[in-house]
Amino acid sequence: MITQEFLRKLVVKNEKKIVLLVFDGLGGLPNASGKTELEVAKHPNLDRLVQNGICGFTDPIAPGITPGSGPAHVSLFGYDPLKYEIGRGLLDTLGIDFEFTNQDMAARGNFATKDDKGIITDRRAGRIPTETCNHLCNDVLKDITIDGIKTFVMPVKEHRFSVIFRGANLCDRISDTDPQKEGLKPLPPQNIADDPKGLETGSKQEANAKLCTFNNAKSTISIVSKFIEEANKRLKNEHPANTILLRGFSKMIDIPNFNDVYQLNSAAIAIYPMYRGLARLVGMNVLKTGTTIESEFETLKENFGKFDFFFMHIKETDSAGEDGDFERKVKAIEETDKYVSKLIDLKPDVVVVTGDHSTPALWHGHSWHPVPTLLYSQYCRRDSIKEFGETNCLSGAFGRQPAQNIMALAMANAGKLKKYGA
Amino acid sequence: MITQEFLRKLVVKNEKKIVLLVFDGLGGLPNASGKTELEVAKHPNLDRLVQNGICGFTDPIAPGITPGSGPAHVSLFGYDPLKYEIGRGLLDTLGIDFEFTNQDMAARGNFATKDDKGIITDRRAGRIPTETCNHLCNDVLKDITIDGIKTFVMPVKEHRFSVIFRGANLCDRISDTDPQKEGLKPLPPQNIADDPKGLETGSKQEANAKLCTFNNAKSTISIVSKFIEEANKRLKNEHPANTILLRGFSKMIDIPNFNDVYQLNSAAIAIYPMYRGLARLVGMNVLKTGTTIESEFETLKENFGKFDFFFMHIKETDSAGEDGDFERKVKAIEETDKYVSKLIDLKPDVVVVTGDHSTPALWHGHSWHPVPTLLYSQYCRRDSIKEFGETNCLSGAFGRQPAQNIMALAMANAGKLKKYGA
Repeated sequence: MITQEFLRKLVVKNEKKIVLLVFDGLGGLPNASGKTELEVAKHPNLDRLVQNGICGFTDPIAPGITPGSGPAHVSLFGYDPLKYEIGRGLLDTLGIDFEFTNQDMAARGNFATKDDKGIITDRRAGRIPTETCNHLCNDVLKDITIDGIKTFVMPVKEHRFSVIFRGANLCDRISDTDPQKEGLKPLPPQNIADDPKGLETGSKQEANAKLCTFNNAKSTISIVSKFIEEANKRLKNEHPANTILLRGFSKMIDIPNFNDVYQLNSAAIAIYPMYRGLARLVGMNVLKTGTTIESEFETLKENFGKFDFFFMHIKETDSAGEDGDFERKVKAIEETDKYVSKLIDLKPDVVVVTGDHSTPALWHGHSWHPVPTLLYSQYCRRDSIKEFGETNCLSGAFGRQPAQNIMALAMANAGKLKKYGA
Repeated sequence: MITQEFLRKLVVKNEKKIVLLVFDGLGGLPNASGKTELEVAKHPNLDRLVQNGICGFTDPIAPGITPGSGPAHVSLFGYDPLKYEIGRGLLDTLGIDFEFTNQDMAARGNFATKDDKGIITDRRAGRIPTETCNHLCNDVLKDITIDGIKTFVMPVKEHRFSVIFRGANLCDRISDTDPQKEGLKPLPPQNIADDPKGLETGSKQEANAKLCTFNNAKSTISIVSKFIEEANKRLKNEHPANTILLRGFSKMIDIPNFNDVYQLNSAAIAIYPMYRGLARLVGMNVLKTGTTIESEFETLKENFGKFDFFFMHIKETDSAGEDGDFERKVKAIEETDKYVSKLIDLKPDVVVVTGDHSTPALWHGHSWHPVPTLLYSQYCRRDSIKEFGETNCLSGAFGRQPAQNIMALAMANAGKLKKYGA
């Protein structure tokens, strides 16, 4: 596999425009009719792209591996998803439009219920309403500072929140406090950094770095423990949300800037905060948009002159797949297709339509199946496929490739990659 | 490529059952009719799986590489065949149901004939009958102990035997004594461990480890040399087997346990000892079975409730291919197919049918050709292939993949892999 480090040496700038249209969870499984969601849906506009493009499949991570949204998008953007791992805390915080800094460490939080012996009786505090969550975060748990480390408790939805610790020398190599089961006490956070004592190999420099990480994890545990203590004190009289559970401690990752790697002026259009967050994480410009698919395509039209790369994200296909709702997924594809004609009218030079992963309604969740993918450009050496669908993709000229290849292929088709070697 | 280390973090246990049915040397080449062995054979039951499954090809090691049985099975079981190299001595010893321990070092032996100048005149001692081999091993060469190292001389077949050295600090970094040609004297075993004197890089710990390996190889050579001397003394009056040649010195390899990696309770069903040995090497439970294909499927039926993974091995396809017997290979496929209906009756959740490599009758041996493979599960997103065969596999939805991916795909289809990342 070509690395991004290799690719960036070949990049040249030009005026050509690329659109990456991602239907979340696009790939499906056939229902009784023998056809998948994409095959049942009518999508004349996607088919116009297909007839002038090439079709095939992408593997988001590798055959057999079911990805979460984080690694799946990292891969779509051309990064190695195993190298750039996004922790749960970071991912959830990306999902609330929080402006994360390099000094921040985030954790995913649950409001929970404990009994008077400290045993967790409900890990989700009866799924309290979002309004209660907002009140607990914004009023009860506001302005907690521990040993100079500022914290931000941000509501997400129902019992879910994010907590961000801001300050120097925080280390995320610490374990969850969420016991993952009811009937147990919350776990004390543990140091999961490598113990420098046991390690005698490596240079002195490496040994020092390990010692530093280990000690930072130790002091971070003390801060997290004091924060939990303070939260418990403030929540004492609340019901049913009288305690908190934390998991997925994670700091910002050191990921190369997308615009820098590809010499693009990129824009992201997504309704859901998590996808805006993922785009922001790699340095894309996140555009304001509405709450409908139509509004996303309007945003594309309004901004088409200002950028040369657009990442567009359609959520509804995945939500319908997760719910096992075959028909709703079909409808989401059909609705989006209506607006694809507006995209075509803008005359982009390269269009890639794909999913971040498959979410077959039959499977009720993300799956490992390769994702139907189409690439349109004037120079793609088109195949004879006429309609977008999994069965047709089997014989398309795009073949089957890691999703990580999409960016290289889109860039090549836009004339944005010079030749390698003389 | 996804590593097994990565995969094991995603594994979850459930009740679903997987059957991996391996036709040794399955892949073929077309005869005058233009069809391969698999394409000429009638296999209605395999075709039932095909019609509800996906077809394609696997590469056991890599395109162009012809594998031996050892690396081919290591790869089928999901291990990196270049990382876990099984020496000849170990492989042959696995093939005789010998209970190999971590203290053992094995070598493949040949009984040979030398003249009175010590020159090898026949590397196979005229392919002595197996009964003579049994007698020489069990009576003449029994109970040899050298400097506290116990040896076991185990008959294999005709002129072939295994010798196992048991004791501490043995090192297999020593060269063969077999000169591979007649008209030469046996070679003295040489130290092929890295000479620690020439090496100035690495830490002190690494240098010490290298010195230790080098010294252990030195003392092992002394033991092996004394063993050969004693064997020559005892064989002096035998004819034509009056000496021995040793090759492929190899110790047990440190390979992760299959049941541990995949959280499976696995069972192996194979008539030939080498395949039982390969299964035992990775920690599968080896089931007692008979000497016919029918008995293998009876064993499957009897044990179906007790395990959640079955590796079944059919040898006859390879033997026929090696003999260049196209018709016999066709018959072996057809005979096995009869019993595949019994397998289907057991309602396994996932079935993979493949070969460890190709053995085309036209080639008279193992070959590098990709291996026809089918995967059946309720969730495989089936393709439109109706019959199992190389030409059809070209357009199947399984595509062409490294054999090492099979385990990940089987596990995914059985719902035994959770998603990677959130």
